[in-house]
Amino acid sequence: MSKADLATMSCTVARTIELVGDQWSQMIIHELFLGSNRFDQLERYTRISPHLLSQRLKRLESLQIVKRLTYSDHSKRFEYKLTEKGRDLWPVVIALKNWGDRWLEEGGEDKQIVLTHTTCGHETTPHLTCPKCGDPIDALTTKAEISSTMTAEREAFSAATLKKVQS
Amino acid sequence: MSKADLATMSCTVARTIELVGDQWSQMIIHELFLGSNRFDQLERYTRISPHLLSQRLKRLESLQIVKRLTYSDHSKRFEYKLTEKGRDLWPVVIALKNWGDRWLEEGGEDKQIVLTHTTCGHETTPHLTCPKCGDPIDALTTKAEISSTMTAEREAFSAATLKKVQS
Repeated sequence: MSKADLATMSCTVARTIELVGDQWSQMIIHELFLGSNRFDQLERYTRISPHLLSQRLKRLESLQIVKRLTYSDHSKRFEYKLTEKGRDLWPVVIALKNWGDRWLEEGGEDKQIVLTHTTCGHETTPHLTCPKCGDPIDALTTKAEISSTMTAEREAFSAATLKKVQS
Repeated sequence: MSKADLATMSCTVARTIELVGDQWSQMIIHELFLGSNRFDQLERYTRISPHLLSQRLKRLESLQIVKRLTYSDHSKRFEYKLTEKGRDLWPVVIALKNWGDRWLEEGGEDKQIVLTHTTCGHETTPHLTCPKCGDPIDALTTKAEISSTMTAEREAFSAATLKKVQS
């Protein structure tokens, strides 16, 4: 299966991975959240080649995750901003950051990016909670149930794999 | 810059993206959370080629995100489980799922994966909150501040880019 085929799966995780699950798109989205909006800033801080950066920005624009605006009437210079759909990817970046801060930082090191919750004024490390009971939630306290559509699709995958093995 | 170079950056988001930010690793981790633990199950449901799957599993094992266990004494068959370090990637998968459920599902469709919080018993959509005040938190209510180490590194990137342009 090629990466593009993920797009045809029912699973919304697979489809999201197909759209924004590549390393360069994630780096660009992360950098846009840090406030870099011009092409040269994005190039400099993500260290992506101009060709690849341009390609990825066009794709993110076509997905309506990024919008391109002219920031000067006099020159044809553009800036890139996250749309609402793009800003909604913030939890992905925060999850990557929390994991990295926990598992990659050597003991005693300060955090590379410190977040402040502007509404309460505190330095913060956002975490996942259950909106029903308000408690923190993780993999061990959750059960996942797959829809009948997705189950049927997975059974079809099994049949196809079996056929391939037998032929 | 090659993808491997992300590993040398101070930024923990960049380093996490280098380690687990590729589409296949994300698909494998997602599938492990759904309870597929055998190689044939992972191959079938992620639709990854056996060669690539084997390669990615080895890498995830070397990163101590996945552990390989023998599940039968009689045969040399293995199963793959997420370690604590691996399970700590759950918020990444949930963030991808929430985004996909919101932005990719056509109106009225049922969710492909339904989560239940086992401690409170409710169907749930985990969301990010600030542990200091308990309120939901997002990109618009947060300020990010970059460490002096990371700022110096970014300035060095700028100087290098400028030098390249001028030469």
